[in-house]
Amino acid sequence: MTTSRSFDVTALGNAIVDVLVHCDDALLDKLDLDKSTMSLVDATRAEEIYGALGPGIEISGGSAANTATGIASLGGRAAFIGKVADDELGGIFGHDLRATGVAYDVPAAPAGADTARCLVMVTPDAQRTMATHLGVAGSVAEADIDPVVIAASEILFIEGYLVGLPGAAAAIAAAVRAARRAGRRVALTLSDAGWVAARRDAFRTLVGDVDILVANEAEACELTRCRRAEAALETLAGRCAAVAVTCSERGALLGAGAETVAVPVGGNVDVVDTTGAGDLFAAGFLLGLARRRPLADCGRLGALAAAEVISHLGARPERNLAELAAAAGLQLAPESPG
Amino acid sequence: MTTSRSFDVTALGNAIVDVLVHCDDALLDKLDLDKSTMSLVDATRAEEIYGALGPGIEISGGSAANTATGIASLGGRAAFIGKVADDELGGIFGHDLRATGVAYDVPAAPAGADTARCLVMVTPDAQRTMATHLGVAGSVAEADIDPVVIAASEILFIEGYLVGLPGAAAAIAAAVRAARRAGRRVALTLSDAGWVAARRDAFRTLVGDVDILVANEAEACELTRCRRAEAALETLAGRCAAVAVTCSERGALLGAGAETVAVPVGGNVDVVDTTGAGDLFAAGFLLGLARRRPLADCGRLGALAAAEVISHLGARPERNLAELAAAAGLQLAPESPG
Repeated sequence: MTTSRSFDVTALGNAIVDVLVHCDDALLDKLDLDKSTMSLVDATRAEEIYGALGPGIEISGGSAANTATGIASLGGRAAFIGKVADDELGGIFGHDLRATGVAYDVPAAPAGADTARCLVMVTPDAQRTMATHLGVAGSVAEADIDPVVIAASEILFIEGYLVGLPGAAAAIAAAVRAARRAGRRVALTLSDAGWVAARRDAFRTLVGDVDILVANEAEACELTRCRRAEAALETLAGRCAAVAVTCSERGALLGAGAETVAVPVGGNVDVVDTTGAGDLFAAGFLLGLARRRPLADCGRLGALAAAEVISHLGARPERNLAELAAAAGLQLAPESPG
Repeated sequence: MTTSRSFDVTALGNAIVDVLVHCDDALLDKLDLDKSTMSLVDATRAEEIYGALGPGIEISGGSAANTATGIASLGGRAAFIGKVADDELGGIFGHDLRATGVAYDVPAAPAGADTARCLVMVTPDAQRTMATHLGVAGSVAEADIDPVVIAASEILFIEGYLVGLPGAAAAIAAAVRAARRAGRRVALTLSDAGWVAARRDAFRTLVGDVDILVANEAEACELTRCRRAEAALETLAGRCAAVAVTCSERGALLGAGAETVAVPVGGNVDVVDTTGAGDLFAAGFLLGLARRRPLADCGRLGALAAAEVISHLGARPERNLAELAAAAGLQLAPESPG
């Protein structure tokens, strides 16, 4: 692509503003929340949890949107598709995304549900437990899919949290069709092991239709019913052209055809908040694949981006990832070869 | 006071959510903003500035509200009076204040202007430049003043940013009347040198009516037309029973009657963001005065709270200030002697 509207990655996901709050394990128990998982909550339950939490800070989030900002920070070109309402948090979400250089043209929903909010509870061990009130984000629809943007993108990236949402199925299908028609690659993240367990059939069907899969160990094992990351990788690599299975402090395993690569973590990090680790790994991995870099480099880019985001509160990079990548000998050309 | 609804301090000020953004000096110049000052902007100008800024994080703020949270963190009892709208940012502001233990009972305005937003631009030298869109905060009115709460408070604390706002004059007058009727002390912060310069007469009148004054060097010199903090302190101590003039890295000067005390800064701090330094100094100083501690201790409590808040982004304490105070030998009794 040589037009100015070409992208490395278009990410399709939930448009969410995070509310970050420090809390202890006892409060998670009291609120009956499953530690380290994401659960969907309705407005009443969201208010109940929020009312029990201490003061928070609001930062734009959303898994695939975080990935898009990571790609932009690495010097790549990203677009995002997801739905906000015409409200204050929707305005903040759109501003923050565009301010990082991500193209975001989906119109805000004029009335009805609010912009999605995710209560991110960070415990002293840097783990995050999430309760998401999806609001209008869950109503992303086929009409929001711009086939021109997807056709102009090396990779279409789908957030697993959309899988199984009633309205989103048509949007995902339309996006995949647009990518296929243009000969583009399709990527998927599994997002959350509990989410996969509850929607196994939908995930299995979709995984059969994607080229690139990103998952953490628990998610990959949940989907494949394997007990170890290595076995899950082997199974998934038989279905997708490129697979990454992240294993927290043990780094990541990558597979592409017969090739397997183990990637160490991206440096010595004082872990403050693991929120966004998977999202940012995906950013580096996908950008590397979009630029057709060697598999090991794709993994190193992912590890480097993940290491930055877990070193501070919030799920979006604070430092310029392109500079970090260049310092690590992983600089990317300003233009994609696509 | 022995009822459960007694307070050390009731703070009256603007209810604001801060949008914190890192930026460089060149952008401040381009946006024609006066570095390190606060300016009021209308909705159009706020959008213009916001559109030019990078991604932000949202944290509840407001000068006197920050002071109230500092008092709560120090183990004191604080109430806040200020106006939000019935919108998302208003809900966030109220939650964050109550979640820190501050009593806040002013009803949200059901329609009209939005909750106030302050664009806080933090430059690499840790200085903050602020552009505030006041929205509904500026319409705090006499009806919002609860004389029972003020009568139950050792000190009524008035934010200088309210001085000169058309609607707020009646609210300030009603609050001062309620405090006087109950035999309570009244405190004022000068808030901003530019604000004082533009409203000198209103400030001079009000200063003649308060017992406690908190100001930084520039504000104190602006009001008194003195050139140095020492001279400004002497002038102001002739008008108010207790005065604190903060002098950034040189600490603070305190005066009460003939007594003068110099307070050093509250420890070695890696300064990240000076936003809230004055607000938190006021928290410690006022709580000390509410508990009738020696003047030097009041200053040390202020310096300790200010040192914590400048060590991180945001204008509200992240650490438990009561623990920091106890570690410094400044523990406060759980109950006020009032």
